[in-house]
Amino acid sequence: MLNDLGFDDYIASYPNFPRDGVLFRDIGPLLASSKAMQLAIDAFAEKLSEYKVDLIAGIESRGFLFSTLLASRLEVGSIMIRKPGKLPGKLIRRTYDLEYGSAELVIQETAPVSGRSVVIVDDLLATGGTLLAAKSLLVSCDAEVPVCLVAVELSAMFGRKKIGCEVFALKTYEK
Amino acid sequence: MLNDLGFDDYIASYPNFPRDGVLFRDIGPLLASSKAMQLAIDAFAEKLSEYKVDLIAGIESRGFLFSTLLASRLEVGSIMIRKPGKLPGKLIRRTYDLEYGSAELVIQETAPVSGRSVVIVDDLLATGGTLLAAKSLLVSCDAEVPVCLVAVELSAMFGRKKIGCEVFALKTYEK
Repeated sequence: MLNDLGFDDYIASYPNFPRDGVLFRDIGPLLASSKAMQLAIDAFAEKLSEYKVDLIAGIESRGFLFSTLLASRLEVGSIMIRKPGKLPGKLIRRTYDLEYGSAELVIQETAPVSGRSVVIVDDLLATGGTLLAAKSLLVSCDAEVPVCLVAVELSAMFGRKKIGCEVFALKTYEK
Repeated sequence: MLNDLGFDDYIASYPNFPRDGVLFRDIGPLLASSKAMQLAIDAFAEKLSEYKVDLIAGIESRGFLFSTLLASRLEVGSIMIRKPGKLPGKLIRRTYDLEYGSAELVIQETAPVSGRSVVIVDDLLATGGTLLAAKSLLVSCDAEVPVCLVAVELSAMFGRKKIGCEVFALKTYEK
């Protein structure tokens, strides 16, 4: 059981951020600890040993904290999944619903995802909207997404059930 | 001479992005290549072998692509330097001028920077405004910033001269 390797000690909790009623889980202490980050990447890499992995996709912006590090560990490349307006060239887009309104994720058309096994990584799984959009975007480009990785999962929002593939979290909070 | 270890082959150029007259240098191909990223981190780590390094600070968001990876390589921690509204808790802020208007960078008051040697990493050095603000922010918290690292430098904007410490770039473009 890798899910609770003491990561709780490295995640700070802030009530009412970014708005009232939300308990924000902050990975700042995890990043600040070389030892804890090593454990985190070890745990992600051990999970990925069950899969063929050709590429790691990080979701802007905190997914980037893990995507290149994990890609380096596995000796594969990485790509950026970004919000609109930041990536140049021809893009592939996916719109998704937010609590109020909608948002969009994009990748570059040149991203080498077609026919490849692409693992998505982000810092947080809450409602799952962003992660599902990222997965749908990659699948629409003929990638396979066997598993998604997150540092923190908020299980009360049932995001995991939406994604349609395995989701591995370093630390799951029930609320 | 590390500055031109063939990184040019892994940086794509897009004219008129994000606006007319700007030649955008895209690190997407660098990220996608495990081999090139290994060389990039090797080059950064070799430069840092000249310095005492206690912590790596990544500037949101593309700095995050390098900060945790480099921190892992050096077995030190990392912190996030972010735009406002995204970090919880008590913050330390630094405003800086943009071409039109101004912007702000923040770190958490809990970030372990005081009395420590903190290296800043970002993807791009252009006018140097962002990097200088990041450095000033850290110095105002009693950190020492011996050197800054960037993947790409646009030397025609003379950003390097503003920073007041060594700046190391993987690849420098004159325009």
